[in-house]
Amino acid sequence: MQVSVNWRQSVALVGTVLKYLAVTMALPLSVAIIYGNDRLVFLVSIAMTAALGLALERLEDDSDLGLEEALLFVTLAWVGVSVGGTIPYLLAGMGTQSTVGLALGSPSALFNSFVNALFESTSGFTTTGATVLGEISLERHSHALLMYRQLTQWLGGMGIIVLMVAILPELAVNGAQLISAEAPGPELQKLTPKIAETARILWLVYTGFTVLLICLLYGLHLRGWAPNMNLYNAIAHGFTTLPTGGFSPQAKSIAAFSPAVQWLVIPFIIVAGTNFALFYFVLHGQYLDVFRNREFQGYIGAIGGVTVLLWGLLFTGAAPPLELGGVTRGIAENSLRQALFQTVTLLNSTGYATSDFAQWSEWAQVLLLGVMFIGGSAGSTGGGIKIIRWLVLLKAARRQLSTTVYPDVVEPVKLGGRTVDEDVVRGVFSFTFLYLFIFGVSTVVIALDASRVGLSLTTIEALSASIATIGNIGPGFGLLGPFGSYLSFPATSKLLMIVLMWLGRLEVIPMLVLFTRSFWEW
Amino acid sequence: MQVSVNWRQSVALVGTVLKYLAVTMALPLSVAIIYGNDRLVFLVSIAMTAALGLALERLEDDSDLGLEEALLFVTLAWVGVSVGGTIPYLLAGMGTQSTVGLALGSPSALFNSFVNALFESTSGFTTTGATVLGEISLERHSHALLMYRQLTQWLGGMGIIVLMVAILPELAVNGAQLISAEAPGPELQKLTPKIAETARILWLVYTGFTVLLICLLYGLHLRGWAPNMNLYNAIAHGFTTLPTGGFSPQAKSIAAFSPAVQWLVIPFIIVAGTNFALFYFVLHGQYLDVFRNREFQGYIGAIGGVTVLLWGLLFTGAAPPLELGGVTRGIAENSLRQALFQTVTLLNSTGYATSDFAQWSEWAQVLLLGVMFIGGSAGSTGGGIKIIRWLVLLKAARRQLSTTVYPDVVEPVKLGGRTVDEDVVRGVFSFTFLYLFIFGVSTVVIALDASRVGLSLTTIEALSASIATIGNIGPGFGLLGPFGSYLSFPATSKLLMIVLMWLGRLEVIPMLVLFTRSFWEW
Ligand SMILES: [K+]
Ligand SMILES: [K+]
Repeated sequence: MQVSVNWRQSVALVGTVLKYLAVTMALPLSVAIIYGNDRLVFLVSIAMTAALGLALERLEDDSDLGLEEALLFVTLAWVGVSVGGTIPYLLAGMGTQSTVGLALGSPSALFNSFVNALFESTSGFTTTGATVLGEISLERHSHALLMYRQLTQWLGGMGIIVLMVAILPELAVNGAQLISAEAPGPELQKLTPKIAETARILWLVYTGFTVLLICLLYGLHLRGWAPNMNLYNAIAHGFTTLPTGGFSPQAKSIAAFSPAVQWLVIPFIIVAGTNFALFYFVLHGQYLDVFRNREFQGYIGAIGGVTVLLWGLLFTGAAPPLELGGVTRGIAENSLRQALFQTVTLLNSTGYATSDFAQWSEWAQVLLLGVMFIGGSAGSTGGGIKIIRWLVLLKAARRQLSTTVYPDVVEPVKLGGRTVDEDVVRGVFSFTFLYLFIFGVSTVVIALDASRVGLSLTTIEALSASIATIGNIGPGFGLLGPFGSYLSFPATSKLLMIVLMWLGRLEVIPMLVLFTRSFWEW
Repeated sequence: MQVSVNWRQSVALVGTVLKYLAVTMALPLSVAIIYGNDRLVFLVSIAMTAALGLALERLEDDSDLGLEEALLFVTLAWVGVSVGGTIPYLLAGMGTQSTVGLALGSPSALFNSFVNALFESTSGFTTTGATVLGEISLERHSHALLMYRQLTQWLGGMGIIVLMVAILPELAVNGAQLISAEAPGPELQKLTPKIAETARILWLVYTGFTVLLICLLYGLHLRGWAPNMNLYNAIAHGFTTLPTGGFSPQAKSIAAFSPAVQWLVIPFIIVAGTNFALFYFVLHGQYLDVFRNREFQGYIGAIGGVTVLLWGLLFTGAAPPLELGGVTRGIAENSLRQALFQTVTLLNSTGYATSDFAQWSEWAQVLLLGVMFIGGSAGSTGGGIKIIRWLVLLKAARRQLSTTVYPDVVEPVKLGGRTVDEDVVRGVFSFTFLYLFIFGVSTVVIALDASRVGLSLTTIEALSASIATIGNIGPGFGLLGPFGSYLSFPATSKLLMIVLMWLGRLEVIPMLVLFTRSFWEW
C-alpha cells in the first residue's frame, strides 16, 4: 500500500493549533494568579503544550492541503487538542480529590485518571459538556482549572466555525453545505469571497454575543437581581453558552441562579443554535430574510411546539416538586421557564439545566429524549442531526411517496424554493443512517459494558449516554442526569463515548473516511 | 378535486377477500362442533362476514386494477379483514370474561370492547401477535375462538405472500423488489412467468412447512416427548409459526412445552424469516445458490452473532432463575436454547418465547430491543426493516465514505456482484427513515398517552410497544412482555398501535401514499 496522503503537513498544523492552545492558557493562568492557586500547574501546562506544538510543527513541509489532508487535519486537530488538553486536568488534579488528576498509585489508577482527563478534555473541546468530575464545586476544584474547563468549550466553538466554513462545504454530506440549498438563506462561502473573511465575520458574531452575555449577566448581578452571578460566573457561562457547551462551575448548572438569569440565558442558547450567517443579514438590516429562512422557521417551530407541549404537561404536574430548580405545578411562569429552558438546552445540544429533569416522570424524560435527536441549525455551534437535515429528510420522504405512484415523474427535493442537489439528499440520508446506526449499536455496547462491571443501568440511561455524547449534548438521564456525572461508567465505555463525541462533532463522515482504504491509497 | 382512482373495484375486491374469510371460518366452526362450544357464534360470524363481503362485491365494475387501485386494495384489504375479523371476538366474548367481547353496558365500554377486538384482529391478520386478551387460557376462551385467532395469522401470512409477489415488486422502495439485486438470488417475479404461478409456488412452500411442523409436533407428542402437545396445540402452533405470527393458545407461549418442542420450533421460525423463493432452488437441487445468497448469509450471520453473544451472557447469569421457562446459569443446553430461541423469535418478528425475557436484566433487554430492529428476509413473512435493507443501507453508507474524497467517481452500490438501482437505494433510505421516524414519534406519543391515564410506563416499555407493533413482532418488555398483554393501554394508544401494525405489515409506503393528494388527483 502506497500512502498518498501528505500526513506530515496535517500533523504540523495540529502542532500550530496546540501552540495557540498554549497561548490561550494564559487566561486560566491569570485566574490562578488572581485567586492565588495553581500557578505552577498552568505554567507547566503552557510549557508542555507549547513544546508539543512546536515539536509537531517541525514536520511542516510547506505543501498545500488537499481535501484529504484537510479531513485528516480536522480529525487530528480535535484528537490532538483533546489529548494535549488533558495536561492541566492531570496536573491540577494530582494529589487532590479530583477524579481527573494524575494518579500514580497503580497502572490501572494511572490509566483511569488519564481516561477521565481525556473524557473531560474531549467533552470540552467538542462542546459536549458531559463530565466525569463528579462533584463540581469551587472548593473541590480551583477557579483556574474550572475556568480552563469552560475555556475549552469556547475554543471548541471557534474550531467548529472554522470546520463549517472551510471544510464541511466541500462535502456533499454535511449540513453546512446545505445552506446553499436555502432560498434567501445565505451561503456561508458566498458571504464574502474569502474563507478567512467569512470565518472572521462568524467569529465576530460568536465573540460579540459572548461578550454581550457576560456583560448582561454581570449587569444583573450589579443590579442585585443575581446575587451569586459574580464576574467569574458571568465569564464562565459566557464561555459555555455560545458554543452550546453546557459546562458550568456550578454543580446545579443554571438552576443555581435566579429566574432572571435563567430567562436571560434562554435567548442566548437559542442564538447559539441559530445559523450565525443569519446575523450577517441582521447586521445589514435584512430582517425579513431571517424569518424567510426555512431552517430558522423549523428551528423556532420545533422549540415552540415542544415548549408548549411540555409547558402544559409541567403546569399540570409532570415533575415532582424538587428541592432545587424544581417545577411548581400550577404556576405558569415557573412551568413555562422550565419547559422552555429544558427544551432549548436539549434541542440544540447545549445541556444546561434549570431543573434536575432526570427526576421528572419517565414519560417527560421520553419526550426530552426525543428532543435530543433534533439538533441545532447548520452554521451554528449546535450538534446533532440538525434541523436542516430533518427538513431534507422529510421532504425526500414526501417525494418518495409521490414517485411511488408516478415513478417517471422527475421531482426534485426543494427547500425554500431552491432545488436540493441529489448528491446532498443522498449524503443527508447516509449521514443520518450512520448517525442513528452508531447511536443504536453504542447504546447496546454501553448497556453490556456496564453490566460487565456490575453497574446497573436502565434503558433510558443507556440510550441517553449514547445520544448525549454523539449528539454533543452532555447530560442524559438517571445517573448521568444534569446534576450527575459519567464518572461511574467503566473506562471502556468512557473511551467509546470519547470517540462518539469526536464523531458527533466532526459530523461522523469526515472522521469515518479516515478508516477507509481508498482514503489512504492512490 | 377530481378523483381519478377507481376505488369501486378495489373495494369490491375487499368484498371478495371477506367472502373467502367467511369460508375459512368453517375451521373454527368445526372446532366449535368438536369441543361443543360456540357453534352459534361462528355460524353468525360466517353469515355476517359473507354478507358484508357479498355486499361490497356488488361495487365491482369489471375494470382492470392499475397500480393505484392495487395499493388502495391492499390497504383496504388489511383494514377490511381486521374490521370484519372482529365479529367472532365480539360475539364469542359477549357476556364472558373475555376482554374483547361486545360490551353493551355503556358507550365507553362498547367503544373499548370494539377497540380491543380490532386490536386482536389486526394483530392476527398482520401476524403481529400482540394481544389484549389478558389471561390466555382454554378455560377462559373457547377452543374455537383461540383456533380462529391462530387462523387469522396463518391467513395473514398468505396475504403477505400475495402482497410481495403481486404488489411490492412494482415499488422501488420495498424489500421484495430488492431480490432482483441479488446475485444468484432468484427474482420472485421471474421464477415463473406468471404472478399467480409464483404465488402458488410460495404458497406451496408455506403450506408444506406448516403441515410438516404440525406433523412433527404431533409426532413428538405421540412419542411421548411432548405430553401437552396434543393435536389442537400442534395445529395452533403450526398456524402461527410460518407467518411469523407468534399467537399461542398457551399463556406461557412455547415455554409451556418441553425442550424437545422448543428445539423443533427453532428451525421452523428460521424458515419463516427466510426468503421463500430460496426453497425453489432447494426443490431444484441448487443448494449452493442458497448459501451464495447475500441476504441469507446476512440473516444466518445476524442470528449466529447475536445468539453466541447472548448465550455467553446467559450462561454466566444474565437472567434470574424464573419459575417457568427461566434460564439456568451454567447449563450450556439451557442457555443456548434460550439464547437461540429468543434471538430468532425477536429478530425475524415471530414473537414466541421460551422464557419471560421481560424479567431478564435490563441490559439483556436492551440487547433484545436492538435485535427487534433487524427483521426477517425479503420474500418471507417476517416483518421489520429486513436484512436486505440493512445490507443496502450499509453498502450505501460505505459508498458515501469513498465518494466523500472522490466525488467524481461513479460507484454503484453492489450486492452479491449485481448493481442495485439508485432508485432502489433511495427507496430503501426513505423507507428506513420513515420507519424509524414513525417509531420514534409513536414512542413519545405512547409514553405521553399512558401518563394521561395514569399508566406508569418505563422507557423500554414505551419503546418496545412502538417497535413491537410497527415491526409486527408482538411482545415487548415489562407489562407487554411475552407473558403479558397490551390490555392496560388506553384505547387511544391501542388505535395508534393498530395503525402501526398496518403500516408495518404494508411496508409503510404503500399505505402512506394513500394520504397524499397526488395519489387521488389526476
Ligand atoms: K453541549
Ligand atoms: K409476530
